[in-house]
Amino acid sequence: MLDQIKIVLVNTTHSGNIGAAARAMKNMGVTQLVLVDPIAEIDGDAIVRASGASEILDSCITVASLDEAVADCGLVIGTSARGRHIPWPLCSPRECADKAKTAVANHNRVALVFGRESRGLTNEELHKCNAHVHIPTNPDFSSLNIAAAVQVLCYEMRLASLEEETVTSSNTWGVEWDYELAKHDDMERFFDHLKQSLVDIDFLDPNTPKQLMTRLRRMFQRTALDTMEVSMMRGILAAVQRKATIANDSAIKQQTDTQTDKQKKG
Amino acid sequence: MLDQIKIVLVNTTHSGNIGAAARAMKNMGVTQLVLVDPIAEIDGDAIVRASGASEILDSCITVASLDEAVADCGLVIGTSARGRHIPWPLCSPRECADKAKTAVANHNRVALVFGRESRGLTNEELHKCNAHVHIPTNPDFSSLNIAAAVQVLCYEMRLASLEEETVTSSNTWGVEWDYELAKHDDMERFFDHLKQSLVDIDFLDPNTPKQLMTRLRRMFQRTALDTMEVSMMRGILAAVQRKATIANDSAIKQQTDTQTDKQKKG
Repeated sequence: MLDQIKIVLVNTTHSGNIGAAARAMKNMGVTQLVLVDPIAEIDGDAIVRASGASEILDSCITVASLDEAVADCGLVIGTSARGRHIPWPLCSPRECADKAKTAVANHNRVALVFGRESRGLTNEELHKCNAHVHIPTNPDFSSLNIAAAVQVLCYEMRLASLEEETVTSSNTWGVEWDYELAKHDDMERFFDHLKQSLVDIDFLDPNTPKQLMTRLRRMFQRTALDTMEVSMMRGILAAVQRKATIANDSAIKQQTDTQTDKQKKG
Repeated sequence: MLDQIKIVLVNTTHSGNIGAAARAMKNMGVTQLVLVDPIAEIDGDAIVRASGASEILDSCITVASLDEAVADCGLVIGTSARGRHIPWPLCSPRECADKAKTAVANHNRVALVFGRESRGLTNEELHKCNAHVHIPTNPDFSSLNIAAAVQVLCYEMRLASLEEETVTSSNTWGVEWDYELAKHDDMERFFDHLKQSLVDIDFLDPNTPKQLMTRLRRMFQRTALDTMEVSMMRGILAAVQRKATIANDSAIKQQTDTQTDKQKKG
């Protein structure tokens, strides 16, 4: 299980934290580290704090965007401290480990995403996740160090991996499923397609999008769509767009005809 | 919790089973019984088998269809013995009780649906459920009496209701949600609207529907849509239909114009 779990750190500011996170990971048997557009470099401080886990720093991958970091993952869980305007499925660290275990048992890769030291993940980043995990802390002193947060979640992942194999043929939905989960990048392409289709049918005004896409994201992300369902939805969107194109062309033609008629009459 | 749970029996053949189910319910503190188009009447045999639970028989409601029985429920769980062609979210009796508890804690009514003595629920009926529950039985002797199945599920419901109140502000998604779950009849209207829209955009051929609606049902049912999401989806469908109408009218007009042109030329 643990070899299918990625720790993703977004815009980390302090190199020491990257090192300490690597150490926490190795302690628990998690090895894949991905840095998204890090502010800090892997420097001497990082290596000192990694304290013998420097091979995790050596093999870590740096990418430009969160999308790139989690593109091949079937389950993306973001760490979140604050309550959000639009509630998102939320789990405890233990529930998070259960989710990860079932996802891995069904041949999916899992990403645990950690935000900036100063202000965590942005709403946009959190909305790319299937679910959020909240580490219960003292409400009077709630801000965890990022490596401490990595430690707690990797600890729960380890416990889950050590438990007797209870996940056999069952998966997310308690039954052997017919298709595998869609990967993050398939979902992002689907959301792009969905958004464009909503613009085409004049339902979404790109200048005042409000919370429409956020609510649709939340709805489809918590469902954890399988690959067949994404294909089906994209087929529907393509059919919607075909009708919209004909309707919109016809509206333009009618307008032109009316103008031509007016000009003729005039 | 228990007063928000309905036991729904579909097309029950033997009156004694209805009585025995009523007794099992009362034993566990569940009181609402709904009979869908029963083959058996509530006769002397039913009353004997109810053995002191006849007030449940007195207050039971008889309706013509499953839709009617579960219209006001936010969570509908169907009992299922067999594996199905298209897998559906499946839970154990204990997980079923957990789901019911969280649903009730969030002000939803819950229906547990039991099928015919001979052959359980039809696929169509099972596809109206958010999830299915399977009572683990000896695979060599797996057919449970309907009252025995009612007994097991009501027992788990009772245990869940007696547990210390662990569900406080959390719900299905582990966080206080902004809207309540859509009720079954809202969902059925949504599925009707979805189906008609798919016909309008020429994606669904009503003569050869294949498994499209079944897969869409499964996808949206397991998501457990909230009322806001259903409104949003119906708004999108209405916008799709407006474009489809214009496109389809324009296609007809073009066809007529071409014919008129041909006639003029001819």
